[in-house]
Amino acid sequence: MDPSFVRSLLRPDLSQMLADDDGEGLAAFVGELYPGVAAEVLDDLPAADILRVLQYAEPSQQAEIVAFLPLSQQAELADAMAPEALARLIEQMASDDRADLISRLGQATATPILSLLPREDRENIRRLLAYPDESAGAIMTTDFTSLTDRLTAREAIARLRQEADQRETIYYLYITDAGGRLTGFLSLRDLALASAETPLADLVERDIISARVTDNAEDVARDLLKYDFLALPIVDERNQLVGIVTYDDAADVAVEEAEEDAQRSAAVVPLDDGYLETPLATLVWKRGVWLVLLLGAAFLTAWAISQYEPGGEGGWMVLFIPLVLASGGNAGSQSATLVIRTIAIEDDQPHEETVASRIFRKELSVGLCLAIGLATLSLLVSAVLLETWAQSSVVALTVFLVVLLGTFLGAALPVGFRRAGLDPALMSTPLIAALVDVLGVVLYYEAARLIVGNF
Amino acid sequence: MDPSFVRSLLRPDLSQMLADDDGEGLAAFVGELYPGVAAEVLDDLPAADILRVLQYAEPSQQAEIVAFLPLSQQAELADAMAPEALARLIEQMASDDRADLISRLGQATATPILSLLPREDRENIRRLLAYPDESAGAIMTTDFTSLTDRLTAREAIARLRQEADQRETIYYLYITDAGGRLTGFLSLRDLALASAETPLADLVERDIISARVTDNAEDVARDLLKYDFLALPIVDERNQLVGIVTYDDAADVAVEEAEEDAQRSAAVVPLDDGYLETPLATLVWKRGVWLVLLLGAAFLTAWAISQYEPGGEGGWMVLFIPLVLASGGNAGSQSATLVIRTIAIEDDQPHEETVASRIFRKELSVGLCLAIGLATLSLLVSAVLLETWAQSSVVALTVFLVVLLGTFLGAALPVGFRRAGLDPALMSTPLIAALVDVLGVVLYYEAARLIVGNF
Repeated sequence: MDPSFVRSLLRPDLSQMLADDDGEGLAAFVGELYPGVAAEVLDDLPAADILRVLQYAEPSQQAEIVAFLPLSQQAELADAMAPEALARLIEQMASDDRADLISRLGQATATPILSLLPREDRENIRRLLAYPDESAGAIMTTDFTSLTDRLTAREAIARLRQEADQRETIYYLYITDAGGRLTGFLSLRDLALASAETPLADLVERDIISARVTDNAEDVARDLLKYDFLALPIVDERNQLVGIVTYDDAADVAVEEAEEDAQRSAAVVPLDDGYLETPLATLVWKRGVWLVLLLGAAFLTAWAISQYEPGGEGGWMVLFIPLVLASGGNAGSQSATLVIRTIAIEDDQPHEETVASRIFRKELSVGLCLAIGLATLSLLVSAVLLETWAQSSVVALTVFLVVLLGTFLGAALPVGFRRAGLDPALMSTPLIAALVDVLGVVLYYEAARLIVGNF
Repeated sequence: MDPSFVRSLLRPDLSQMLADDDGEGLAAFVGELYPGVAAEVLDDLPAADILRVLQYAEPSQQAEIVAFLPLSQQAELADAMAPEALARLIEQMASDDRADLISRLGQATATPILSLLPREDRENIRRLLAYPDESAGAIMTTDFTSLTDRLTAREAIARLRQEADQRETIYYLYITDAGGRLTGFLSLRDLALASAETPLADLVERDIISARVTDNAEDVARDLLKYDFLALPIVDERNQLVGIVTYDDAADVAVEEAEEDAQRSAAVVPLDDGYLETPLATLVWKRGVWLVLLLGAAFLTAWAISQYEPGGEGGWMVLFIPLVLASGGNAGSQSATLVIRTIAIEDDQPHEETVASRIFRKELSVGLCLAIGLATLSLLVSAVLLETWAQSSVVALTVFLVVLLGTFLGAALPVGFRRAGLDPALMSTPLIAALVDVLGVVLYYEAARLIVGNF
């Protein structure tokens, strides 16, 4: 079964089961689906409904499903849960997932929860949270399997039978000495295929690649993916094995890093969550701070032109041509970058209509806020170089219109391309800027005609 | 051991061993290193040297190391090898890797090689190459493990012992019926931990997620990574199992897709190879085609201004302010995007100096070609709206200078940020465009002063 087919089948069913309070159906839903698929179907529901569904799952299933939800939604769920229930859930989660959730909850909510956890778990969480944000320690899990090499294959498998449930992966097994130092590894592939009495020491690979817990997380993720490893062991400065980074977390880091670079490069302060989960005010702030900086730079351009152009009644408009055009182009680049990547990541299947129109409404609201802010600023700043407020008003009105226009085109063109069956990313940001330029010039001169008459 | 440490240790050693013709050392090098690490150390060497090193490896090791090299380099190696040796190497490669290499070689080189392969391999390659480029079929491997569920765990492990060498992964095992249709799967984890006499049927998961061979490769990769699977089975329209996509190939697809979006979004036709492996002429073409289109759009802006401005001796310069600034900004955006992502992907360790200066030389060459081309075009196009060739020359000279300037800043600022220990991606493309604007205006008016005197 194709996953998007599964989702489109289940969404309406789930709503019906919730409406009917159909316990049997809900239990089957959480019991039979892959946790990742269940999480995706639950994704859009209010926290209270998600909790109603989850109560039919075993605690370990609950923990797995929750870990697949976006972090912002995990935090919402946590807020809606009784502290005891939340503590039970957190106890079941993988060490890296629960550390991420705790750090998201903030001190005030997290402290009472931590006190409800067994001491071992509490210390494990504290240790993981102590690693710097961008380090290997911050993305590793401590649920690895370590063995001594004095076992036989049969004994090792018996050990795994007891432990496997709590381990994130048992495909790679790490060998440590009495001091916990990493001395080798073997794969479950080699172990499973070896005859029962083979000493582990004969199967172990001693020449092992590892990373330091303080290494940069992106570098570690990149190396792991480059060499096609399933996991990379993480050691401290005494070569003691403290965790492993698994391929799935490494892939997340690599993709997130590419997203962040795309956002930075379009002059957006990188978003912590997905575009659709980010609140309006945060989007306005993370885009606005750059647009204000860029407006400042564009003012320098206006000043540079004023050193050459006579200005005055005939020539004042020239000074601000680059500024008004750049404002629209920059806002448009931001919109296009966010929208193109959001369309690329979000599913194109059943609920496309909803996603496209949610993106669209959000962009227009953000664009309106940015347009008002930048227009006000332009009004004040342009007055430094212009003689009358009427002239400044022309600049401000044009900035208002082109920022709205840029946001609109930046959002509408990629969505339109997608609708037409084309790659939304074909709509490059310079092309959007170029379209804004042509229309922006017309808006600028028409605004002048309107406000100051014959310019 | 940290992989970058391994690389920095081995590079000089390897050159020494090659110079001394130290067969024992070279044999140890290829025998003991992970194939991915060996490939990375070999990466910079000429094809003849790589072949000298590889002759010390077992055929299966050779195939693994070669598969880790960039595709452009694999093709170079193939061209330098005798057809028989190449056929032996290709026979050993994983089905997806060798299909990629064959498709890269082109019909003329590939046909004689194919005729040297066993018929089964030849047909396998032809079948894989027949799938459309962007489909799941194009990224899957046919080296999967399928079993009937009428075995016991012990019998299944015995089967795996015979086959494991030729399989890309044995961590997921697929159950097929007599018609080859996919009916379930089990993990090596469950198989290895089950007692010997357990019937496979008791371990099999029947509710299996799969994808169609014609599904979009990016969607398949995204689903696989989203649900944290190790592999996803790929079926044809009759539900027959035809291949699997593994997590490592899925991660490559996801990261490549993000790169391509970043390039498209900066108005660069996506590169087939890495930036450093792409020939100069290809880079000029893939950037130039967009810059010419954008110059056309900027000419529309000039024309729009000409509808409002008087032009003539006093006002002709205004028309082309947006065009000259956009040319520099667009070239700068392209450079910054390519350079930032190249720095992010390339290693920052021992040979950083080399990478940065290679990037830099390449960018300046590309910038020079683009500047000459766009300046020529601007000279001709601006003449339509301007009265004298001297005025057009001012536009053309400025375009030449700002395109060079944009390329220079787009390459230099991210490299400089990296040197200063900052994230190169902090240098957003709009900020580079804004800097080009300020300097571009000065260049424009100074060019006018130089060529037409008192403008």
